[in-house]
Amino acid sequence: MSTIFDKILDGSIPCHRVYEDSSVLAFLDISPLSPGHTLVIPKRAAAHLHQLPDEDAAALGRALPRIARAILAVTGATDYNVLQNNGAAAHQAVMHVHFHIIPRLGDAGLGIRWSPGSLPDGTTLAASIRAALEA
Amino acid sequence: MSTIFDKILDGSIPCHRVYEDSSVLAFLDISPLSPGHTLVIPKRAAAHLHQLPDEDAAALGRALPRIARAILAVTGATDYNVLQNNGAAAHQAVMHVHFHIIPRLGDAGLGIRWSPGSLPDGTTLAASIRAALEA
Repeated sequence: MSTIFDKILDGSIPCHRVYEDSSVLAFLDISPLSPGHTLVIPKRAAAHLHQLPDEDAAALGRALPRIARAILAVTGATDYNVLQNNGAAAHQAVMHVHFHIIPRLGDAGLGIRWSPGSLPDGTTLAASIRAALEA
Repeated sequence: MSTIFDKILDGSIPCHRVYEDSSVLAFLDISPLSPGHTLVIPKRAAAHLHQLPDEDAAALGRALPRIARAILAVTGATDYNVLQNNGAAAHQAVMHVHFHIIPRLGDAGLGIRWSPGSLPDGTTLAASIRAALEA
């Protein structure tokens, strides 16, 4: 399934590029939540983060602090959110993995609603996830 | 500055561990937004993502899809958000880098408010961030 990010990656749609290496591209979001709002994507086509191979995910992780430092230096922001959505129910709009780096500048930035619950079954749940990781 | 995550890392406070490697620890959030809500942290003490060295950031990136796959397998979720907050104004509560993996299960999960603007100065802004990255 092709997305607009494939067209950005192949150059058929332009972007405001801020960073590129052999496996990662970063460019400004054209509908930013705040100045400096940047998207960081793998060159490998994968809709969701859990579909990414280790090496692509590591390259993304490595790039995030470098890009964040540059965004902070240029925008003057000190606070920011990094957000990566998977699936339409989790607000993913383009089905190619992308990390948002969203500076917080006054009222501009990411709005979050936080409604925490409790964890009555933590021991059992953690054991199940550990088992799934080791499977 | 010590945080509760230092105590979790040194074992003086228990956690519901789901994953561990030489530079990453993951454990269940004790106030989850949804079942399976997990925190993924570097063992290196750093308050904010932009302070992390390349190798620690790469290790975090590499771990995220692995842990996400296990959480999805156990919870049955298909959609989820990955969120990493930096600074009190961006909702960071514990000043040690942590990625949230938050399954979306029905109404449970991360609430997001999205108020996008426009990008009149994209060319100039991207050039400034590129220059900061290359400095």
